[in-house]
Amino acid sequence: MSSKPDLNIGLIGSGFMGKAHVFGYATAQKTFDLPFNLVFHTAADISDQAATRAAAGFGFAHATADWRDMVTNPAIDVVSITAPNALHKEMALAAIAASKHVYCEKPLAPLAVDAREMAEAAETAGVKTQVGFNYLCNPMLQLAREMIEGGELGEIRGYRGLHAEDYMADASGPYTFRHDPAGGGALADIGSHALATAEFLLGPIAEVMGDLATLIPTRPDGYGGTKLIEVDDVARAFLRFENGATGSIEGNWIATGRKMQHDFEVYGSKGALSFSQERLNELHFYDTADAKGRQGFRRIEAAPEHPPYGNFCVAPGHQIGFNDLKAIEVAGFLEAVAGRGPEPFNFRSGLRIQTLVETIQSSSAQRVWKTVAT
Amino acid sequence: MSSKPDLNIGLIGSGFMGKAHVFGYATAQKTFDLPFNLVFHTAADISDQAATRAAAGFGFAHATADWRDMVTNPAIDVVSITAPNALHKEMALAAIAASKHVYCEKPLAPLAVDAREMAEAAETAGVKTQVGFNYLCNPMLQLAREMIEGGELGEIRGYRGLHAEDYMADASGPYTFRHDPAGGGALADIGSHALATAEFLLGPIAEVMGDLATLIPTRPDGYGGTKLIEVDDVARAFLRFENGATGSIEGNWIATGRKMQHDFEVYGSKGALSFSQERLNELHFYDTADAKGRQGFRRIEAAPEHPPYGNFCVAPGHQIGFNDLKAIEVAGFLEAVAGRGPEPFNFRSGLRIQTLVETIQSSSAQRVWKTVAT
Amino acid sequence: MSSKPDLNIGLIGSGFMGKAHVFGYATAQKTFDLPFNLVFHTAADISDQAATRAAAGFGFAHATADWRDMVTNPAIDVVSITAPNALHKEMALAAIAASKHVYCEKPLAPLAVDAREMAEAAETAGVKTQVGFNYLCNPMLQLAREMIEGGELGEIRGYRGLHAEDYMADASGPYTFRHDPAGGGALADIGSHALATAEFLLGPIAEVMGDLATLIPTRPDGYGGTKLIEVDDVARAFLRFENGATGSIEGNWIATGRKMQHDFEVYGSKGALSFSQERLNELHFYDTADAKGRQGFRRIEAAPEHPPYGNFCVAPGHQIGFNDLKAIEVAGFLEAVAGRGPEPFNFRSGLRIQTLVETIQSSSAQRVWKTVAT
Amino acid sequence: MSSKPDLNIGLIGSGFMGKAHVFGYATAQKTFDLPFNLVFHTAADISDQAATRAAAGFGFAHATADWRDMVTNPAIDVVSITAPNALHKEMALAAIAASKHVYCEKPLAPLAVDAREMAEAAETAGVKTQVGFNYLCNPMLQLAREMIEGGELGEIRGYRGLHAEDYMADASGPYTFRHDPAGGGALADIGSHALATAEFLLGPIAEVMGDLATLIPTRPDGYGGTKLIEVDDVARAFLRFENGATGSIEGNWIATGRKMQHDFEVYGSKGALSFSQERLNELHFYDTADAKGRQGFRRIEAAPEHPPYGNFCVAPGHQIGFNDLKAIEVAGFLEAVAGRGPEPFNFRSGLRIQTLVETIQSSSAQRVWKTVAT
Repeated sequence: MSSKPDLNIGLIGSGFMGKAHVFGYATAQKTFDLPFNLVFHTAADISDQAATRAAAGFGFAHATADWRDMVTNPAIDVVSITAPNALHKEMALAAIAASKHVYCEKPLAPLAVDAREMAEAAETAGVKTQVGFNYLCNPMLQLAREMIEGGELGEIRGYRGLHAEDYMADASGPYTFRHDPAGGGALADIGSHALATAEFLLGPIAEVMGDLATLIPTRPDGYGGTKLIEVDDVARAFLRFENGATGSIEGNWIATGRKMQHDFEVYGSKGALSFSQERLNELHFYDTADAKGRQGFRRIEAAPEHPPYGNFCVAPGHQIGFNDLKAIEVAGFLEAVAGRGPEPFNFRSGLRIQTLVETIQSSSAQRVWKTVAT
Repeated sequence: MSSKPDLNIGLIGSGFMGKAHVFGYATAQKTFDLPFNLVFHTAADISDQAATRAAAGFGFAHATADWRDMVTNPAIDVVSITAPNALHKEMALAAIAASKHVYCEKPLAPLAVDAREMAEAAETAGVKTQVGFNYLCNPMLQLAREMIEGGELGEIRGYRGLHAEDYMADASGPYTFRHDPAGGGALADIGSHALATAEFLLGPIAEVMGDLATLIPTRPDGYGGTKLIEVDDVARAFLRFENGATGSIEGNWIATGRKMQHDFEVYGSKGALSFSQERLNELHFYDTADAKGRQGFRRIEAAPEHPPYGNFCVAPGHQIGFNDLKAIEVAGFLEAVAGRGPEPFNFRSGLRIQTLVETIQSSSAQRVWKTVAT
Repeated sequence: MSSKPDLNIGLIGSGFMGKAHVFGYATAQKTFDLPFNLVFHTAADISDQAATRAAAGFGFAHATADWRDMVTNPAIDVVSITAPNALHKEMALAAIAASKHVYCEKPLAPLAVDAREMAEAAETAGVKTQVGFNYLCNPMLQLAREMIEGGELGEIRGYRGLHAEDYMADASGPYTFRHDPAGGGALADIGSHALATAEFLLGPIAEVMGDLATLIPTRPDGYGGTKLIEVDDVARAFLRFENGATGSIEGNWIATGRKMQHDFEVYGSKGALSFSQERLNELHFYDTADAKGRQGFRRIEAAPEHPPYGNFCVAPGHQIGFNDLKAIEVAGFLEAVAGRGPEPFNFRSGLRIQTLVETIQSSSAQRVWKTVAT
Repeated sequence: MSSKPDLNIGLIGSGFMGKAHVFGYATAQKTFDLPFNLVFHTAADISDQAATRAAAGFGFAHATADWRDMVTNPAIDVVSITAPNALHKEMALAAIAASKHVYCEKPLAPLAVDAREMAEAAETAGVKTQVGFNYLCNPMLQLAREMIEGGELGEIRGYRGLHAEDYMADASGPYTFRHDPAGGGALADIGSHALATAEFLLGPIAEVMGDLATLIPTRPDGYGGTKLIEVDDVARAFLRFENGATGSIEGNWIATGRKMQHDFEVYGSKGALSFSQERLNELHFYDTADAKGRQGFRRIEAAPEHPPYGNFCVAPGHQIGFNDLKAIEVAGFLEAVAGRGPEPFNFRSGLRIQTLVETIQSSSAQRVWKTVAT
């Protein structure tokens, strides 16, 4: 009954993030008035078996073990890339060359130089792109940004950002591609989220000083031996924002007990905000304009007043989840694909994060402050 | 590519709960390995226009202003009823008569006598039924029940349950169908959730003493006049469980500031649990077996160890939302439809809640303790 | 150097509450500008040894094994009674007869009839009295009452109060005087605190319905046998306040894991309050006048704006503790002794609590609602 | 009745910290079995009037406007210094020269070079000293240290420490002695607390990188003009501990809304701790040894198992306050004075903090990492 044009989706990869993309598309289709009728066209994975299983499990009409066939298939409109990081560039460039819109999981590429090539290719080709920084899609983060931009906190002075988890805290966990010196490490993997949130809220970071440390020096190599770890387990950085604010972030993948400590606090002259992804439907707001003796951090619960929460639920406080963030990301991207809005976080933005990561890495290696290239 | 049989869905109603059903089906389709390929067949609403809009918005192939046509359509397999409460019975009986499986929003019917007729009709017809008590679908509640049944808390002694919101706290809010003396009131509307959770966790309630109160005695009638309110704004009940535990619940729709205070605490001889739907991905557990000086309520975050959380996300602590609870409800119901599992919360269970509600209501009216009919 | 008159203190008992009284006097002496110079004159306990040890430990000049000698000693101005509950009456009446001001730990007496005799004796004698309900002395409770009385919450509609601990949760714990059918049980012991707070905040309770339950039916008698328990482990009550508000309280001494769950929530037409003694320096306030999209419970931290916090610390958020509450209690009582203010919680108030307790007990026994005698 | 020797106390200053010392002595006298009978001998302040008022208010027998008279008075045993920071050195050296034990508020002196002179003078004279870092006296911090030292967290890897308040957040607040370039700034004033806690828990810091920033560049000078601010409003530092752990701290006196955010998190290979002074009676502990599916941060409430909590209250969870921390500090100091225990935090420790502060300051000024002198 829909008179909307079809949008044929091709997916590469079917792990954690492959699933998240599918859930995102499926949920967005129902919760938003998208400009397209989404069609789960082709699932690509590393073998026929894996691809077929993914297609069946996720409801794609076709399956292929050759992602190249899929990205050059004229029927495909959008390509979702959720393959290992090292493959993002080749896949994205091929898709862009075939004039597909591309939704690529983060990091855009292990190295900024590659991310730049990808961003420029997309811009030249005129296709729309999206990098998966879904924490930014939280209505509470949108609210935080609005409040900051609207002056509700006054002049912004201080920022503390974090992204800490514990998935690498077990020293007996084996070496993985995330430990690859080219593009690996806690800063690149999750500190990047803390950086994305910092700039999302306060604008460009001008200068950084990094401190990266490896706390688990070797890991099992999976073949009975051990492998030296060269990447950071914990990364910290001092930040100077262009707007004059100062701050810090930490990326940490050995934070025992933490599953999703993507937190921030913002201090301004008139108010403050405090947020934890551990309770992602809440934003805590301190307003110096409150009456004396009645001041305090106020726990704002996500509600229809905080778009696009209302797309998910008309009642306040009922809460959205991680996959819903992905649906919001999809919706924003597809609005851009339809030419109805700006790209929420395109390859250029992904490059920006990669640039920040590398600047902090080199700052740490050289133990000096670095200006962030614009 | 799916070799699963199609299951054609018919939906009646497209408001808050209509949407929630659609989101539930759509999400379940992607997150669970359902026994069926779900087909959004027909959306029914009170007018052609409303039905057409719902069909377009939700992705149904057909629309109708006559729900009777839909429930008797041989193509339809499952009927979702999200119309106003007073219509549930007529719709469900018609659907059952046409041998459809029925997924009905709560309350099953305004009166227990009607709910009983519905439950018996379904049982006679041999169709599968589900009533929407989705808070029970939370992996944290499943965990709580498992812990209680597994003896982790020892002998259960005390229970406190709540469901408080503030959607009726504004005295200038008009009279609605929820204020109808036949089936309305805070206890029926949301106290019923507190009752469902109490029995889900501790088993049957044997005896109750109720106290219902109307705090906002009149409301605008929508036509410039006022209307006397006869139903409860706040309902409290003492509970005696068959297992010997004692407890209380409160249902409250004028709890200013509360959006989703569906909370409980369970106290046993060996441990305790504390939960708030305001932070639905957490269960707090006190274990007397912890070392002395190291005891305390432990904040367990939802993780893949707590099925079916892992269907939504392979990483712990990333969180599910309200609509995901609905997807879990759908998945359980469809397993039952396929004959692969028991009905999670069928019409008989819905009748049970209605019976509890009415027993508490009459206890309050007569100001005496009442035994709950089994 | 002080030109203040001396006030000679006599103390009976040196256990938990004996210490708390001493700490209260000592702290009050330093933190408040009291009308007196406090002199720790005589400590009385059940034996010479116990009394001497108490005097040495607490800094009393004299010790006695005969409390009667002490209460009739003309040098003594104020008598602090922290002996077992069953002795309160005899001691207090003797002290009153000797024209002493009396500060008696709660409960004033096991039975209301005795409490009444004590209150009347004090009033006739014209001495000042105080019963130890120190949770009421918390600046956050004073703030809560002020806000309610000042109309900041609008019309008050709903109340939930609790006092739950777990000191009786271990079924192998022996029978104690607290299990004595005459005056014992969870309601009398700690539910009384929940009642005191309820009336402190909302004013008189008009009607109650009680539900008391014994969950641990026997306990070791300390001599190798067991003893039947006749008092309540958990007590619940529905409340109707004179101002029209409705509510409930629970007293529970088998709440595994809870050490000080003296909590309340108050719901009004314009706002709400939430408090837990577990975080006694915080009061959470929801204000419907906050801007839309910015509403939420606000965590107000105790500060000099909330008297008498400033007597303890000039800086906000530094926090007071349990013993400081006792100091505030002492200060208020001594102001009354000096004729500079009303008695904060005198024997008449203690009688009131005892009356409430007994009304709830008899309501529970008879399973009927009871009007509270005024 | 006490057979303990008298200990005559002289106090200099009667502001916030003067009061806190008096409260500390008074409370310690009652809560601890101190080796002395404390005598409030002489209060010194800047004028006869101020001194007399302090003596009367605090219960000192004598008053003087000349602190030199007091510190050389043979009757005085212990001198408490709570005068402005710039005077600490002169006062302490005079007291030490007169063989008094000295309890000096932090910072010991504005500059490390002076602190060193003071520490050495005390050591040469053989008197006992104490610097006021009372947050370390919290039973929860003692517990945290014990757990870390006892290996309950395994190998320590990461640390985050904070001390943030907002007492300088208002840009219209005037220039004070805390803004003096010699010894002022947020790092020296409260970041020093974060440093003290970091070393208290994890041991010596080996290397630091600092980042200090001034966000409010000028302040009213109190005479109608403005004054340039040269000290830091926010200070951040990266830390490398001798034990191999890495970490960071922040000191911030413009953290709008924060009154006492003295927080830390410690991450080890086997567990983690999280603490906030905003809830000073709680320590949150994550134990990887907990059963799978039952893991989570556990809220340990201060209890008699955590000495010296039991000195204040025999019941768990009743809570101590800020002034009680001061009493614990006093008790530890007086044990040392009596030769019954080590000095808890002597002038040498105060010097250490000053050294850390200055190393971070110079690191920030030069924008290079610095090794901390031992």
